[in-house]
Amino acid sequence: VKIAFSVKNNEFWNEGIEKIKSDFPMHDFLMVKENSDEFYDSDLAVAVRMKSETLEKTSKLKAIFVPFAGINQFPLRDIAEKGIKLSNTHWNAPYVAERALTLSLSVLGRVVEFHDKLKQGVWGGFLAQYEENINWISLRKKKISIIGLGNIGIELARLLKPFGCDVLGFKRKTDTELPEGVNRITADLNEALEFADVIYMILPLTKNTRSIINESNKHLLKGKFLINVGRGKTVDEDTLFSLIKDNILKGAGIDVWYSYPFEKELIHPSKNPIHLLPNIVISPHCASDAYEGEAEGVRKTLENISIYLNTGEIPDLVDLNEGY
Amino acid sequence: VKIAFSVKNNEFWNEGIEKIKSDFPMHDFLMVKENSDEFYDSDLAVAVRMKSETLEKTSKLKAIFVPFAGINQFPLRDIAEKGIKLSNTHWNAPYVAERALTLSLSVLGRVVEFHDKLKQGVWGGFLAQYEENINWISLRKKKISIIGLGNIGIELARLLKPFGCDVLGFKRKTDTELPEGVNRITADLNEALEFADVIYMILPLTKNTRSIINESNKHLLKGKFLINVGRGKTVDEDTLFSLIKDNILKGAGIDVWYSYPFEKELIHPSKNPIHLLPNIVISPHCASDAYEGEAEGVRKTLENISIYLNTGEIPDLVDLNEGY
Repeated sequence: VKIAFSVKNNEFWNEGIEKIKSDFPMHDFLMVKENSDEFYDSDLAVAVRMKSETLEKTSKLKAIFVPFAGINQFPLRDIAEKGIKLSNTHWNAPYVAERALTLSLSVLGRVVEFHDKLKQGVWGGFLAQYEENINWISLRKKKISIIGLGNIGIELARLLKPFGCDVLGFKRKTDTELPEGVNRITADLNEALEFADVIYMILPLTKNTRSIINESNKHLLKGKFLINVGRGKTVDEDTLFSLIKDNILKGAGIDVWYSYPFEKELIHPSKNPIHLLPNIVISPHCASDAYEGEAEGVRKTLENISIYLNTGEIPDLVDLNEGY
Repeated sequence: VKIAFSVKNNEFWNEGIEKIKSDFPMHDFLMVKENSDEFYDSDLAVAVRMKSETLEKTSKLKAIFVPFAGINQFPLRDIAEKGIKLSNTHWNAPYVAERALTLSLSVLGRVVEFHDKLKQGVWGGFLAQYEENINWISLRKKKISIIGLGNIGIELARLLKPFGCDVLGFKRKTDTELPEGVNRITADLNEALEFADVIYMILPLTKNTRSIINESNKHLLKGKFLINVGRGKTVDEDTLFSLIKDNILKGAGIDVWYSYPFEKELIHPSKNPIHLLPNIVISPHCASDAYEGEAEGVRKTLENISIYLNTGEIPDLVDLNEGY
């Protein structure tokens, strides 16, 4: 079996690949570039993304292993048509949940704004006692809606527990047990949007979730905070711009976007100049990029490959039709 | 009794003062400017700071009520010499603890850095898969030292609980019960500095705490994160600059400072250009400035004045010798 890795050149991968090589000396492990020719006669691929053209030319590929959860950067339809399996890993929930909490505390806490002002010598706080609007907003006791109550949302609810928030989860199936820190579950999106002071979007991008927030329900977000660590396009691009620019939202913390660089070029994260607006904290789709998570992503991916090599079974299969 | 208020002109104070006026129609409540002449024949003052010259000229002042905990912006020795009582309020612990958590997540999470880079179109995360050093650091399971385990530190330990950290508290008296989320208490500062990955400074400024971190122990902070929401001068000013500039610390989140504006002038927070260094999140002494806290500070201060007017007792006295 030939296994081609197009992954980071770092300690975690280098050590992990050395280890699996010595565990399976009869197989062929090699490090390759993104969209490399080497994928064409490989049996297994490990990659963080892949172009259609690369996939088209592969002749023997049985499975692609992704060292994290998000798979929208793969041509899912082409993968399904070629009968290739896609396997992802879900180690990242704790880190994405931590990032969601961090973004919300940063936005409510006006962290970037206060930092930038103090760099200029402008004090919003302490001694500006007679100024208006120097206050930040506490997350304490707020009404929270977690839109997408999967592993990440469940972990976020756990992190929120000491804040004494009233937490509502949104998911399609509501007949499940309440996770720790979640007070109620609804399948009614409008109810969840109306309820909350702070809305956390943690949805995968599927045909059901694309633009789930759009012009028809944006009025429900008036005066609220929006955090998105799921997928950018679950919020309509123009609607998000209007929500922020027109001060419908009190603030937004956005980690997931509409435009991404493929190579190293400079690129703004939306066709609209969201990055120039003041009441926002933007973040380069880095919710999974915790240092501590790297190790876990590598370990879990190599474990799944080992399982395949030992048993022929591919763990953690993506439902290519559902898209997650 | 004449009571002079030098406080913010906002809904909380305006409504609160109307209420206490109607509760005590026989007394004289008035709003005055900072360091106003009106303090000279007042019996009670409500203020956020006061100059020595103002205090010197007062003839009848019995007590000053401060609507928060910090009292270093008052001439404590002069207050003691004139036999005036100082009463502060401690409602702010939950908010300062929340700010400490926010600053640490912001610094470990590289929130400001990533925000600034993405504004320029530079992506640190997601698709820069082959770049070095794009990772942020999780707070999860870290070793934490809380230097100053008072109300704020105890609340911080509670907020940290879901992160599964190993929490060491530093305080002088170690024979107290362990607060929720604190695993151990020490009176040995060096032990606390050596132990931690993340050090939270939450000390008042007293003769015992001034420059408690200095050139003699700064080597113990190598590779760690430092958060200060207590008082700036508990860390020697030049030592802090060196700790950050020379990359001894991995990062710092600082809310409390060495230089403050008295009027509205622009002023940098230290004589050293700390604000220009990259691995830091700076914050304008705003840990108590949560919107939700304002209401509580006003309520508690007016309650203490009511107690005095009803009983002659002044609650929540500051020990002017200890300075907190």
